[in-house]
Amino acid sequence: MELSRRRLLQGIAGAGAVGALAGCAPSAAAAADVVEFHGPHQAGIATPVQDRLAFTAFDVTTTRREDLVALLKTWTAAAEAMTRGVPVPGPAPSDALPPADTGEADGLAPGRLTITIGFGPGLFTAADGTDRFGLAARRPAAFAPLPALPGELLDPARSGGDVAVQACSDDPTVAFHAVRNLTRLGRGTVVARWAELGFGKTSSTGNSGGTPRNLLGFKDGTRNIEGADDAALGQHVWVADGDGAGWLGGGSYLVARRIRMFVEPWDRDRLSDQQAVFGRFKTSGAPLTGTDEFDTPDFGAVGPDGPVIAEDAHVRLAAPENNGGLRILRRGYSYTDGIDARTGTLDAGLFFLAYVRDPDQFVTLQRKLGSSDALNEYIRHVGSGLYACPPGTTGPDDWWGRALFT
Amino acid sequence: MELSRRRLLQGIAGAGAVGALAGCAPSAAAAADVVEFHGPHQAGIATPVQDRLAFTAFDVTTTRREDLVALLKTWTAAAEAMTRGVPVPGPAPSDALPPADTGEADGLAPGRLTITIGFGPGLFTAADGTDRFGLAARRPAAFAPLPALPGELLDPARSGGDVAVQACSDDPTVAFHAVRNLTRLGRGTVVARWAELGFGKTSSTGNSGGTPRNLLGFKDGTRNIEGADDAALGQHVWVADGDGAGWLGGGSYLVARRIRMFVEPWDRDRLSDQQAVFGRFKTSGAPLTGTDEFDTPDFGAVGPDGPVIAEDAHVRLAAPENNGGLRILRRGYSYTDGIDARTGTLDAGLFFLAYVRDPDQFVTLQRKLGSSDALNEYIRHVGSGLYACPPGTTGPDDWWGRALFT
Ligand code: HEM
Ligand code: HEM
Repeated sequence: MELSRRRLLQGIAGAGAVGALAGCAPSAAAAADVVEFHGPHQAGIATPVQDRLAFTAFDVTTTRREDLVALLKTWTAAAEAMTRGVPVPGPAPSDALPPADTGEADGLAPGRLTITIGFGPGLFTAADGTDRFGLAARRPAAFAPLPALPGELLDPARSGGDVAVQACSDDPTVAFHAVRNLTRLGRGTVVARWAELGFGKTSSTGNSGGTPRNLLGFKDGTRNIEGADDAALGQHVWVADGDGAGWLGGGSYLVARRIRMFVEPWDRDRLSDQQAVFGRFKTSGAPLTGTDEFDTPDFGAVGPDGPVIAEDAHVRLAAPENNGGLRILRRGYSYTDGIDARTGTLDAGLFFLAYVRDPDQFVTLQRKLGSSDALNEYIRHVGSGLYACPPGTTGPDDWWGRALFT
Repeated sequence: MELSRRRLLQGIAGAGAVGALAGCAPSAAAAADVVEFHGPHQAGIATPVQDRLAFTAFDVTTTRREDLVALLKTWTAAAEAMTRGVPVPGPAPSDALPPADTGEADGLAPGRLTITIGFGPGLFTAADGTDRFGLAARRPAAFAPLPALPGELLDPARSGGDVAVQACSDDPTVAFHAVRNLTRLGRGTVVARWAELGFGKTSSTGNSGGTPRNLLGFKDGTRNIEGADDAALGQHVWVADGDGAGWLGGGSYLVARRIRMFVEPWDRDRLSDQQAVFGRFKTSGAPLTGTDEFDTPDFGAVGPDGPVIAEDAHVRLAAPENNGGLRILRRGYSYTDGIDARTGTLDAGLFFLAYVRDPDQFVTLQRKLGSSDALNEYIRHVGSGLYACPPGTTGPDDWWGRALFT
């Protein structure tokens, strides 16, 4: 029931045709503006990608399990309210109290806001080996900190975290407001460790308006898993009950990578080289062996100078055809953090988010990409996080991670 | 002519009723999506505030005046094209050349993009006193680096610059694309010094949709100068031909201040204190002496505990009634740069942009606010720039700053 309502709402919003469907009536827009919070899976994974992102990773500072559980309950209720466009619940407003909600999103439409939570490996076993919350035995076998990977030079200050929250909305103030208010509610229990704002979506999971482009100017998300492709989601994204950790069934793993792009040398590279790096045409997004964006790449095609899609082309290395059918769901956003003072270059790139059924899907791909991808000349992974995202909540009495803690 | 077309387009876009007016027809949206580039004043000052900002300040690295002039011509043409939603002009596309445009905005509507330029004091007289470009004699008497002001602790790495560009669009990727491409065209002549992304507008200059809120949760821009108020603009914003520097007639001064907000203590403050700080109600935005947002504050009203709008309330100190009629045009945006690693607090605040006819308008206000404003407990000015923005361009043969350099 819940799911089909969410699907319906997503369908309307995803069609991007709110006005056209409803003669621009605000009431229709308001309904289409809300993504149902409850459901078998958390919203914000298979949901058609919203335009903007606010991401925050937290360290848990309490050692009391009951504090953490209390926070997860409070967070769930607050998140559910915010996705409906309602302020954070709290005591009756009073002059003598701080307002329960920080207020900057008052009057703004939720813009399909979704708030998605994930738990870091450190919640189960801390870096020093302690089991702070009695969760060590609940850690899925597949879930360990990511190994060192090629192509990375990670900043610990922008990596890791015991808990992560991904807020996505078509309105960045709404997304920011969501993580800010959760941060505030977490005071005394968690502390924000790092955060990133994504200003433009780069992946499509069934959005209208065409495939968005990343900061290298290429369409990104063409062969992504579609949010409506239940078969692919079941095979590659949702953890199955039988995967070995009951509480995570219906959940997923989130891999977050802050990938810096060296845009200046990229912008000086000629078009044919740029296209060879990806194995796709820049304007159309078509594979170099085709003419339409959605043509299937022909990895066997050979031209006068060798393979048409080069051996080290990004899509050749990443495609399921060349990885035993392996696929991931990408949900990345462009980011910028101003000018890199050391070098005078632009500090910008891709805040890569991917959802997988097993972290090994990412590890397998990045081992290959990090060592062989032609793109490596222009990028570096500089931040990283891995989080186990519990399944969705079933209704008002449920809360994030209940099956893990009870 | 040009102006009235711009006004018309702004009017349509500003009404926010594109769909309603035109039955959501995409063609109407496309027209309303373009703000005319040419006109007596640069667009992006009195233009109804767009949702998102990308700001970049540059240092000029060349010492050759002709290089700088050539860049200003190139920039003007590129900016004009981008505001129409057209890629950066360049040689005919070729596999053997880098694309003239970086491409990430391909297919995106311009979203009322405006690109506004300003020249820093250092362009006229460098910090070491040299007159690199023979412009020292053209420096308006009113135009000198801002003096030290109370309430500031400035980071030189996020202050100053010889040239600044403000790009505003309803789409952040479009705004980012604009400054990125100008940066790229400037290679060898200028280098980016600092940059900031504004994710949500905080000022209204005649927008529909109501007054936006800043990150302290208050409506911001209620008593701002309206973009359609020609009398106020003429008196407080546009430099007049008679103001003493002919080339700047029809232009304006831009004051940029990166103002960090200490949101954590703010969020713990009770509602009545928050409202006393501004002298306004949080939810409605009305002055504490009124009930409607647009009621005129009554600074003489006295209650049982003293003045209803406190002596140190932000609006009392800033209001024209208490500053001999002095007004400014505010055009600020909310920013965030993640978590402050030293303190674990949110690095966020107001990227304050104001346009004035004379920098002294800002200096006068900030001297007063910086020393007496109740808001000072929750904010600190951490970045600063002052730029003289030339008038608008008259048509395709004109370029930014022509009257200054010829
Ligand atoms: C800044 C870094 C990256 C950029 C700019 C980038 C860009 C792209 C582009 C333009 C495509 C082709 C269009 C599409 O099908 O989406 C693509 C495909 C893909 N990328 Fe990336 N990517 C980056 C990093 C990664 C990473 C780190 C991974 C995983 C470890 C990855 C996995 C994939 C996959 C699986 C595909 C689909 C390949 C296919 O099925 O044809 N990408 N990427
Ligand atoms: C983070 C810093 C600041 C915040 C959060 C802030 C917020 C506000 C708010 C909420 C209002 C009332 C609504 C309105 O009329 O717009 C206001 C008014 C005003 N502010 Fe600020 N402001 C800040 C900094 C400044 C600075 C630095 C200046 C100038 C030096 C300034 C000048 C003004 C003026 C002139 C008004 C209109 C007062 C009136 O006519 O009633 N503000 N500000």
